[in-house]
Amino acid sequence: MMSKAALVVGASQGIGLEFARQLLDRVDRVYATYRSPDCDLFQLDSPSLERLQLDLTDEAQIERTIAKIKSETSELHYIINCVGVLHDGAMQPEKSLRHLNGDQLLKYFQINSIGAVLLAKHVQPLLKHRDRSVLATISAKVGSIGDNQLGGWYGYRASKAALNMFMRTTAIEYKRTCPNAIVVNLHPGTTDTRLSKPFQKSVPPEKLFSVDRTVRQLLDVIDQLENHQGGEFFSWDGTQIPW
Amino acid sequence: MMSKAALVVGASQGIGLEFARQLLDRVDRVYATYRSPDCDLFQLDSPSLERLQLDLTDEAQIERTIAKIKSETSELHYIINCVGVLHDGAMQPEKSLRHLNGDQLLKYFQINSIGAVLLAKHVQPLLKHRDRSVLATISAKVGSIGDNQLGGWYGYRASKAALNMFMRTTAIEYKRTCPNAIVVNLHPGTTDTRLSKPFQKSVPPEKLFSVDRTVRQLLDVIDQLENHQGGEFFSWDGTQIPW
Ligand SMILES: NC(=O)c1ccc[n+]([C@@H]2O[C@H](COP(=O)([O-])OP(=O)(O)OC[C@H]3O[C@@H](n4cnc5c(N)ncnc54)[C@H](OP(=O)(O)O)[C@@H]3O)[C@@H](O)[C@H]2O)c1
Ligand SMILES: NC(=O)c1ccc[n+]([C@@H]2O[C@H](COP(=O)([O-])OP(=O)(O)OC[C@H]3O[C@@H](n4cnc5c(N)ncnc54)[C@H](OP(=O)(O)O)[C@@H]3O)[C@@H](O)[C@H]2O)c1
Repeated sequence: MMSKAALVVGASQGIGLEFARQLLDRVDRVYATYRSPDCDLFQLDSPSLERLQLDLTDEAQIERTIAKIKSETSELHYIINCVGVLHDGAMQPEKSLRHLNGDQLLKYFQINSIGAVLLAKHVQPLLKHRDRSVLATISAKVGSIGDNQLGGWYGYRASKAALNMFMRTTAIEYKRTCPNAIVVNLHPGTTDTRLSKPFQKSVPPEKLFSVDRTVRQLLDVIDQLENHQGGEFFSWDGTQIPW
Repeated sequence: MMSKAALVVGASQGIGLEFARQLLDRVDRVYATYRSPDCDLFQLDSPSLERLQLDLTDEAQIERTIAKIKSETSELHYIINCVGVLHDGAMQPEKSLRHLNGDQLLKYFQINSIGAVLLAKHVQPLLKHRDRSVLATISAKVGSIGDNQLGGWYGYRASKAALNMFMRTTAIEYKRTCPNAIVVNLHPGTTDTRLSKPFQKSVPPEKLFSVDRTVRQLLDVIDQLENHQGGEFFSWDGTQIPW
């Protein structure tokens, strides 16, 4: 039997780390990326796990990481991109226009949108094989333009809308170049991670998922994707989210 | 009778220049912006016209330009943002993933998306009056995620999708802060300007609009907007474009 392999990008913590953990039960090799070695990924232990350092805003690092994987395998079956930023030490989501700042907006696009499509550029050769494979990117429902009722969070929203467009455009290209690869945007639901921490007070407990639950739910959605679909945007419960 | 005023951003040439020209027939004062004084806007002559230098990627310049306008009037009735880039000396729209380049992608977002929302931030005080007013931004149908069938043009598409999200989010905020201002995204149709020049060969002549026709059509659409709408995306013929 042929062996299967997965790549999880942004696996230092949160949803990405849990994807790495759960994919270890499904495939023979899991490549998992982190930025700083001082992270929880180093607590996850398995002979099938390989950790790779990758800042997704640096294309040269993406190239090097993919070259390393290619030296070991020619086929990936799952690529899950969990990289995303809503806030960090320096940035906070903008409540209103007066909080907007050009540099912060650029940073949202760089991390949440551009990194993802540069990844899609470089992983292409690893998806040209004949097995079913999936390139899933974690987007966010607040990145739905049609669903936007509340406003605010300008940079995060726009960068996720841009991400959705990038992955939809990638799906169209992949249909030609790697027809067995399914490209999808996924909304994980509000999940208990660093990213949602400051906003959890207003979330009813039954709507705040553990990473374990979120990743099980998203793997179910991934399992049910059909190949004629491409670049669509699905929620954790399998429903389609409007653009 | 109260006097009316308009601001056209990106009026050096193309659709923006024609908006400045046609708005001179509608309002008492037209503020029109350019980047380099060596441009066609300086051929347009009217005592009602005031030219202002503005690079939309520089927030300090936006602030200064709006401050200048505020020193002369407290109310704008039309704000038309025609700034956009598809290609220039250094950049070409990407036919496929292998043409992607992080710096070029950032530039698309900076000019096509971030500039527009920083403008929306600073014009707000000039839209708080009681008359009907419109903030219209020229987007593009290829920025529709749902309508994307052909692929390619990654940066332009994603930056227009991000623009649409920014303006929809602005519309939601304006409902509170300047309820008489209507925010809209407009698709002009393929129009004979520098921007479409390299791609006109594949366009049937009856589908290539003169700037005169495009601007008349878009002003018709603007005239018919109703105030309960907000941040929607309309084509030159008044039909709504999916996100
Ligand atoms: N949690 C939610 O409720 C929720 C809801 C909707 C969507 N999402 C999306 O789900 C995805 C995962 O988020 P999460 O909740 O698991 O948040 P998280 O715990 O903050 O994880 C974010 C991950 O992205 C990585 N990252 C950030 N910038 C990076 C860069 N430049 N290069 C490489 N990696 C980078 C982080 O690495 P470091 O550890 O090095 O910072 C971390 O691994 C994100 O796309 C997020 O937008 C989450
Ligand atoms: N023409 C079409 O077929 C078509 C179709 C769909 C959408 N659109 C959209 O329509 C809008 C107008 O385009 P157009 O066709 O009139 O093209 P254009 O003739 O190339 O005009 C573009 C305008 O944007 C200005 N601009 C570019 N970067 C700028 C910056 N950083 N700061 C300030 N101004 C800047 C240009 O100024 P300079 O002269 O200084 O470069 C020029 O005034 C764009 O948003 C475009 O995406 C056009």
